[in-house]
Amino acid sequence: MLLQGIAAASGYAIGKAFVMQEQATAVERKDIGTDAVEAEVERFQNAVQQAMDELEQIKENTAAKLGEHHAEIFATHILVLQDEEFVGQAKEKVRQEAVNAEFALQEVTQQLVDIFTSMDSEYMRERAADFRDVSQRVLGLLSGKKSAQLSDFDEAVVLFAHDLTPSDTAQLDRSKVAGFATNIGGRTSHSAIMARSMEIPAVVGLQHATESVETGDMIMLDGSSGIILINPDEDTLSLYREKKQKFEKRQEEMKLYKDKPSVTADGHEVELVANIGNPQDALGARNNGAEGVGLYRTEFLYMGRDSFPSEEEQYNSYVTVCETIGSDKPVVIRTLDIGGDKELPYLELPKEMNPFLGYRAIRLCLDRKDLFKTQLRAILRASAHGNVKLMYPMISTITELREANAILAETKAELDEEGIAYNKGMEVGMMIEVPAAAIIADQLAKEVDFFSIGTNDLVQYTMAADRMNEQVSHLTQPFNPAVLRLIRMVIDAAHQEGKWAGMCGEMAGNLKAVPILLGLGLDEFSMSASSVLSVRVLLSRLNRDEMKQLAEEALALETAEEIQYLVVKRVAAVQELSI
Amino acid sequence: MLLQGIAAASGYAIGKAFVMQEQATAVERKDIGTDAVEAEVERFQNAVQQAMDELEQIKENTAAKLGEHHAEIFATHILVLQDEEFVGQAKEKVRQEAVNAEFALQEVTQQLVDIFTSMDSEYMRERAADFRDVSQRVLGLLSGKKSAQLSDFDEAVVLFAHDLTPSDTAQLDRSKVAGFATNIGGRTSHSAIMARSMEIPAVVGLQHATESVETGDMIMLDGSSGIILINPDEDTLSLYREKKQKFEKRQEEMKLYKDKPSVTADGHEVELVANIGNPQDALGARNNGAEGVGLYRTEFLYMGRDSFPSEEEQYNSYVTVCETIGSDKPVVIRTLDIGGDKELPYLELPKEMNPFLGYRAIRLCLDRKDLFKTQLRAILRASAHGNVKLMYPMISTITELREANAILAETKAELDEEGIAYNKGMEVGMMIEVPAAAIIADQLAKEVDFFSIGTNDLVQYTMAADRMNEQVSHLTQPFNPAVLRLIRMVIDAAHQEGKWAGMCGEMAGNLKAVPILLGLGLDEFSMSASSVLSVRVLLSRLNRDEMKQLAEEALALETAEEIQYLVVKRVAAVQELSI
Repeated sequence: MLLQGIAAASGYAIGKAFVMQEQATAVERKDIGTDAVEAEVERFQNAVQQAMDELEQIKENTAAKLGEHHAEIFATHILVLQDEEFVGQAKEKVRQEAVNAEFALQEVTQQLVDIFTSMDSEYMRERAADFRDVSQRVLGLLSGKKSAQLSDFDEAVVLFAHDLTPSDTAQLDRSKVAGFATNIGGRTSHSAIMARSMEIPAVVGLQHATESVETGDMIMLDGSSGIILINPDEDTLSLYREKKQKFEKRQEEMKLYKDKPSVTADGHEVELVANIGNPQDALGARNNGAEGVGLYRTEFLYMGRDSFPSEEEQYNSYVTVCETIGSDKPVVIRTLDIGGDKELPYLELPKEMNPFLGYRAIRLCLDRKDLFKTQLRAILRASAHGNVKLMYPMISTITELREANAILAETKAELDEEGIAYNKGMEVGMMIEVPAAAIIADQLAKEVDFFSIGTNDLVQYTMAADRMNEQVSHLTQPFNPAVLRLIRMVIDAAHQEGKWAGMCGEMAGNLKAVPILLGLGLDEFSMSASSVLSVRVLLSRLNRDEMKQLAEEALALETAEEIQYLVVKRVAAVQELSI
Repeated sequence: MLLQGIAAASGYAIGKAFVMQEQATAVERKDIGTDAVEAEVERFQNAVQQAMDELEQIKENTAAKLGEHHAEIFATHILVLQDEEFVGQAKEKVRQEAVNAEFALQEVTQQLVDIFTSMDSEYMRERAADFRDVSQRVLGLLSGKKSAQLSDFDEAVVLFAHDLTPSDTAQLDRSKVAGFATNIGGRTSHSAIMARSMEIPAVVGLQHATESVETGDMIMLDGSSGIILINPDEDTLSLYREKKQKFEKRQEEMKLYKDKPSVTADGHEVELVANIGNPQDALGARNNGAEGVGLYRTEFLYMGRDSFPSEEEQYNSYVTVCETIGSDKPVVIRTLDIGGDKELPYLELPKEMNPFLGYRAIRLCLDRKDLFKTQLRAILRASAHGNVKLMYPMISTITELREANAILAETKAELDEEGIAYNKGMEVGMMIEVPAAAIIADQLAKEVDFFSIGTNDLVQYTMAADRMNEQVSHLTQPFNPAVLRLIRMVIDAAHQEGKWAGMCGEMAGNLKAVPILLGLGLDEFSMSASSVLSVRVLLSRLNRDEMKQLAEEALALETAEEIQYLVVKRVAAVQELSI
């Protein structure tokens, strides 16, 4: 039998299934009599203390294994147990109603969860999950039961559960768990993110997997495609054993490249950097071997709040990124790209018929000089603490570039007057994501230090096809010859003026695109951190001059399909690394 | 005092104001006694007959002066008076209630008008206006009053009215009326359209003009800018007299060019054709000297109805256009460009976040082969009756072009099998309005007979700026160097393959753009009919080789403003003809 779920963490797991039983539905109320009340409160207090000790241990292990960021959630859980509102209320209930601690805790937890889940906020719903998770741990300790008997198996199992809490996931023992599968969850759910960090193959969102599978079934789980096979035949199994071996060999190989330079077989060096959305991502970027940050999307600083972030907040965030990634490493900070599909509740903008063709990014910042200058000041100040570069989004005319640069010059003059330090040689570049900018790149190149091609938007405008619209997704073609010609124009224009050209759209991390981009002379590839190592390995197997030839052949073709086929046919490494 | 209205028909009118008084609010009811009833019915019937005679006369005069199309409305009015439902009901009322004919007519008219205006249909509301117009005419005849005493003035007056009905407008005597101004109406209202045909300068939508102006005031009306000056000083008047003279001289000059070829001072010939939206427009195109139709927007056939038009309906419409414009003249029929901002109630499409980047035009037609083939059959059949050319909209990839051509080949094969005639050599072209198509025009040129550049869409996609969005209108720049470079690429690509390149966006009729487009080698200019003659005059003053040089200089500039300034500075005729 085959189950299709959502691919959450790549890799293959082959082994016996272990199906985690659902938690007992509800604890029963027991009247314990007023005499037993104080003993019951003490029993409860001991369980709470024991839970805190366990959580402290899990927190330390997680920080050591996966980094501080992943450990934060357990600090939060400890805080929950230190919260007198919560623990205190449960004790009160035991005393006032003379009931068992389990029932009291369950009641108090349910009340809080109900309040949180009724709030129309993703954040609050997550808080409800924290209370539920903590409460389950204490209930487990009160009952004296162990949660799962993984030790019953000699070999590592494939774990099936309705859901895994972050603490469940963090405690998984890599030697006991080959992979896991859950009924609920999505690619960005907490346990999926942790699974990727822990490199445990995982499939989520399987809906009824725990009902379809029995403990002891033979399982093949493919975390890259989201497929699970239940009791497959021996031929299929050996096929997947082979795939697993290749995958793991590739993973090992990739790790060897973590601290190596990004260089082709014939010695041509490029820069592989990461796209990040918040300071925490910088850690993931460093851990995945990125040589810096090619795109720091600052809009996340402005979102999920009810007023603009202050200069100080922004400055702190930018400096944190520099410190995390390493202060010699480049950090390209893109100025605010709000509008379009990204709205701010506290910045009222008129509804637009076509927001992707509307009032957004630099178009808005040039009108809102106050807002723009606050960000420029924060970026300039951060430039004193790292290798910061500044980048404008959505420039469509040279006039806009000049206006932005004039505001930057004005901001610098103000900092000079106030005696505030910044890097006077800070590089200033722009994104190329509007077709017009690509077409006049030769003119723009004279007035910037670098370009970074934003392929996601460039493709949608060039093809006139909304990248979020299913109905025209067949036209969103990064490999369309028109798009490749624009990319060539941009790179050539930059080089003509002695400037560098990067790319920060999804295409830069696409293994089929890398050979062509290398051939066209791209200097910097910025991608999601998880793609960095595979691109570095691919580059190490490519020959720059051969790729120049390949790019030329590709650009003579007429369709995106032909171009992708050419790359796969001619560059064996692309196929091998795409496992 | 200055009033600003909506420019409805260009030209200057200078003269005394004549303010038309509002029609008496209501006719009074008079009881005439049963004995007088039959005499009253006869008096009414005589008035109806007289009205029909007048209308017949107006109809003939209008047909002779302005063409059959403009006379149609009066045929409709005659039909209204022949309608027994309408006239008969009024007679019935006189007989049954023994009231005066005026009151009976007014009551019956009001009932009908109320019914029509309550319907949620533009068409029905127009019908209400017909009944009101006819009824007013009969009421006037019954009262024996003359409607306006224009004869009181020696010189032509500037007429002010709350509104002018089509029959008011058609009866205006050019020697008595120098121009007119109305409180209500828009640029596409019936009287505005007639004013343009009659070449009477007009401003509409002035709101309270009839209250601000008194009969006898000195007036300067500028129908090009929508400005009216009341009692201006003598210096201002003489300035405008000069403008008027220049304008009229230019108009006279333009008329000389109506049947001339479109040729530059140094003998280079191009084609000046018109964009039309329905078969009636073809007459306007011919009257304005267009050498054919460069864009027939067929979506109007599909709109304002509740099912798809049949093959026969479409065929008839296409043939009518060919016959009207002249069967040797080219008629470029564009296949359905629905979706985006144009919706059909009977074709349910999902709501899109960015309709301009969505599922529209050829994207939809390639999926809806049934619908597409019906139109292709109608166009092919029409090609047997004129110089029809077929054009696909919104092609973004060569694959789409090949798919469309395959369906066309299939349709031709079916007609062959059925023995139905069509022009086997019919030219097949495509619009260039998606940046990707412009960039790969060299590849596309091998598989079409011609290109027509749709600048309205090409500009909005290239600049990533919705052309309907006020907030980014400063970026909708047809003169942006990026846009001009794309246009050059398209023209060069066509010529490289021995094909012709036209343009059917607004830019083709823009006097500042024409010198550059000529310089770039554009072969066909398609525009609104009213621009044809001024473009032809401009061309006659240009030298092709000089314009080549000018285009080269323009394309080396960096901003749209610089480019427009260069054209105006270097080509004196542009300024002169832009009065």
